[in-house]
Amino acid sequence: MTLIDPTRIAETTASSDAVTIYVCITCQRAGMPESEPRPGAVLAEATVKAAIGTGVTVRRVRCLANCSRGPSAAMRCNGSWTYIFGGLGTDCATALIDGARLLAAAADGLLPWRGRPEPLKRGLIARVPPLDFEEDHV
Amino acid sequence: MTLIDPTRIAETTASSDAVTIYVCITCQRAGMPESEPRPGAVLAEATVKAAIGTGVTVRRVRCLANCSRGPSAAMRCNGSWTYIFGGLGTDCATALIDGARLLAAAADGLLPWRGRPEPLKRGLIARVPPLDFEEDHV
Repeated sequence: MTLIDPTRIAETTASSDAVTIYVCITCQRAGMPESEPRPGAVLAEATVKAAIGTGVTVRRVRCLANCSRGPSAAMRCNGSWTYIFGGLGTDCATALIDGARLLAAAADGLLPWRGRPEPLKRGLIARVPPLDFEEDHV
Repeated sequence: MTLIDPTRIAETTASSDAVTIYVCITCQRAGMPESEPRPGAVLAEATVKAAIGTGVTVRRVRCLANCSRGPSAAMRCNGSWTYIFGGLGTDCATALIDGARLLAAAADGLLPWRGRPEPLKRGLIARVPPLDFEEDHV
């Protein structure tokens, strides 16, 4: 159940234009024969197209070093946590855009679990806090 | 063979004081029985101690979401790539500090392979470019 309509988030947040998705274009599909164009490049191309008009920036990157669990992508805004995803399909462009807009709308800089597209739940590889982050009470 | 002496890097770079290591304190050892204190917390404590006098900032973080391949840590400077490592031992504090100083000294923002401590080679989980990164020729 999606409680937040990602199509409306860009209209309601000031920071949405600062969200960036990095898609690894060198990724092969883990455990599958090599193919050209590479699945990562196909996903990047689809994500660039899906981003048109959304305010989301998409950058192609040669390697996110998540090679054993590709295809891979990462996302972050200024001040947000950085998320890295793997095991993505070439059909995950919309999931990446929807996730990026959820992250852009998150006041606490954390990508919410509720409403998060399924590929960004099962494909979570790691997350890193923003540069100035300090954990409370440790 | 280490060609760069990490103990001398802090003296020769202006950015070394900006390097931060995030150590996940909730990490258990993947595939091992649960234990208290958690291996991640032990590693964090050791890394805080190893950082004294080095100019490296160490932050404890509750979860880097790399749970299946912990213990985990991440590192970055302003303008550098962000690196995430897993499968670390509680004896990896010095490796983390040495790696952080190598990263702080890297003019291109990339953690060099040569001279990188072994746990940061075999434990590489992923890397993410700096916020303003654009790949050439893609």
